Amino acid sequence: MRAERGLLIVLSGPSGAGKSTVIAALMKRRRDIRFSVSATTRDPRPGEVDGKDYFFRTHEEFARMIEADAFLEHAQYVGNHYGTPAAPVDESLDAGYHVLLDIEVQGAGQVMAKRPDAVSVFLCPPSLRELERRLRGRGTDTEEKIRGRLAAACREYARAKDYDYIVVNDDAQTAAAELDAIITAEQCRSGKRLNLIIEGDRPI
Amino acid sequence: MRAERGLLIVLSGPSGAGKSTVIAALMKRRRDIRFSVSATTRDPRPGEVDGKDYFFRTHEEFARMIEADAFLEHAQYVGNHYGTPAAPVDESLDAGYHVLLDIEVQGAGQVMAKRPDAVSVFLCPPSLRELERRLRGRGTDTEEKIRGRLAAACREYARAKDYDYIVVNDDAQTAAAELDAIITAEQCRSGKRLNLIIEGDRPI
Repeated sequence: MRAERGLLIVLSGPSGAGKSTVIAALMKRRRDIRFSVSATTRDPRPGEVDGKDYFFRTHEEFARMIEADAFLEHAQYVGNHYGTPAAPVDESLDAGYHVLLDIEVQGAGQVMAKRPDAVSVFLCPPSLRELERRLRGRGTDTEEKIRGRLAAACREYARAKDYDYIVVNDDAQTAAAELDAIITAEQCRSGKRLNLIIEGDRPI
Repeated sequence: MRAERGLLIVLSGPSGAGKSTVIAALMKRRRDIRFSVSATTRDPRPGEVDGKDYFFRTHEEFARMIEADAFLEHAQYVGNHYGTPAAPVDESLDAGYHVLLDIEVQGAGQVMAKRPDAVSVFLCPPSLRELERRLRGRGTDTEEKIRGRLAAACREYARAKDYDYIVVNDDAQTAAAELDAIITAEQCRSGKRLNLIIEGDRPI
């Protein structure tokens, strides 16, 4: 039997929602997930590694990839470009892996339109007050950037209803467990499972 | 904050799919589920307890309950009546418990029509051959009854596509874990979670 095609999982959420921590916890719980590495034109933050956290690209390099239609989605955000190379995603899905896309709401909308079978999850902090506390606690952003991120968070919140699921990141382990459950449940969706039953055992 | 209303979970599957074992395993994993006890006119099997496995009722008693509109669903199956009293289900849901209904496909259809927000799961054995093996292994049914159950299973299989989820009971613990995940995931559905976010923290 060939491998069942994996799930394409779109994960969005405001900066400061704790996506990186939740994703790391999820990857420890499941071995059948591949994390899609995005390309971006933004500067690396301290400790970020090229090819692991992001593919860090110049604006010129990024423009050439758009021209070559190499992205599943791409978007501009706070003055920088972000995009998901399509080919490695489909390779992983065909091999039976679930692929997790960590993208902001604009890019997520593009993926949902292109791939209606994608499973979309909006990760949010317990409250905007807590989000502000986390952003300030990080100590990497200027006051102006923090205000920009909070304003962006408000705009993103308004899109949460377009996602299949909403996970509140009060505790990273709980949030990862919920993501884990969403993946398991989506594999049990009758639309996905029906073929398996019929293939294995035609009852009539 | 008032308790979030629980999920109404409809579980169906052919006799011999192993529902009782899976439900028992699920109830050990979660403390937030109440198992709805059905009323039936069929005779108790050895070891079954009235009020625990079923409310065993006479045909006359059952008819009076139908007249009083006391059922969420009721159906006839292999010459006997089965039904789910509505009041205790709604009391439990309002108290924040998930309520699990173990009902056959006719009754399930009634519940899905009456309660569009119900979460429906079809539990099936790995194959019809395995189902036959389990039915014979149980040693409680006549050859005629076994054939009747297998024919009914074929008819029920055709309805699996009407359910939200299909869980294959190859191993009871795995099947229970999948049901557990489905409940957790359904609680994260954006339609259900959105109110919670907006109530807790109006972002605009």
